[in-house]
Amino acid sequence: MSTPEPVTAVADEQKRDAYATRAAVLTAARRRFSLHGYADVKLRDIAADAQVSAALVMKYFGSKENLFAEASSFEAEAAVLLDCPLDELGTHLVRTLLDFHERTRADPLLRALFTSSRPAGATFRENFERQFVTQLSDRLSGPDARLRAELVCAHLIGLGATRLVLRTEAISAEPDERLVARTAPLLQGWIDGVR
Amino acid sequence: MSTPEPVTAVADEQKRDAYATRAAVLTAARRRFSLHGYADVKLRDIAADAQVSAALVMKYFGSKENLFAEASSFEAEAAVLLDCPLDELGTHLVRTLLDFHERTRADPLLRALFTSSRPAGATFRENFERQFVTQLSDRLSGPDARLRAELVCAHLIGLGATRLVLRTEAISAEPDERLVARTAPLLQGWIDGVR
Repeated sequence: MSTPEPVTAVADEQKRDAYATRAAVLTAARRRFSLHGYADVKLRDIAADAQVSAALVMKYFGSKENLFAEASSFEAEAAVLLDCPLDELGTHLVRTLLDFHERTRADPLLRALFTSSRPAGATFRENFERQFVTQLSDRLSGPDARLRAELVCAHLIGLGATRLVLRTEAISAEPDERLVARTAPLLQGWIDGVR
Repeated sequence: MSTPEPVTAVADEQKRDAYATRAAVLTAARRRFSLHGYADVKLRDIAADAQVSAALVMKYFGSKENLFAEASSFEAEAAVLLDCPLDELGTHLVRTLLDFHERTRADPLLRALFTSSRPAGATFRENFERQFVTQLSDRLSGPDARLRAELVCAHLIGLGATRLVLRTEAISAEPDERLVARTAPLLQGWIDGVR
């Protein structure tokens, strides 16, 4: 029999569990919002994915709308996607996106797309433009920087859509590094402003 | 006062109205399925778009699932998108897609994407692959024809997603012909097999 833990350790443990649970719920929510339209995403499915009860999700987030609002930040993913010198960013973007797919079955750009037709989706769209598209665009020099940044995004969305959602046969079967080699030079062309 | 029309003419008129109504409902359904997830598409909204009653939609199609199944054919749009010699197909694809956006506010590739996460979406996905991706792939020569066809599709999906749904500021503001000039050469590179 173990001795009872000190009260402070129990409180710390509960606190850590609360953080971990919130994080697990947010991860599950973001995955669902990457693959389905808003009305198709059910709180109980998110709860099941996170291995908690729907009641606990409601306790932490209050409502589906609130959870939706918290899931609408792109900051963490944008930081990872853009964490690379400009001259290798094309390769880094594609490789990082495929890695998101592999590890989490989620895609931040598809999350922006699938939620954007809802009234509440305005938050997603604004966060996506501000936290990702503008961050990228601000780093590009030369004419049409904003347009080039958006073309990079468009291409990444198409890649995610065919690989993760439509699962078209050839793009799904292509090894990551071959897909990177095939598409990164295009993105790099827009990044460098030579296309 | 006009004289009563002959019975056969009345029957013809009714028949033509029935065809026109069905077509209007299908067009409205395809537009809705291009912009929203399945559960977000309501029969009453489709009926309102087509300027008929929801009861009439049910009379013609029986159920949302049936309407969904009929809306899942890509044949007509694929025929228009692919109706061009191979050496100018890149330009034709982008121009035709932007023209679809302009005229109908709909996009066949986004329709495939937005419906594909539903159980019933398997029909959409299969039709899309068979009626569009495979049709394109079969016309390409050289290695990796299927992969190149899918990369063309991926790029068109990304363009539609940013232009029609996310409405990112630069891609939305760019005149059609400049967007064609900017992106068609990439598609042509995949079509020709030089990329």
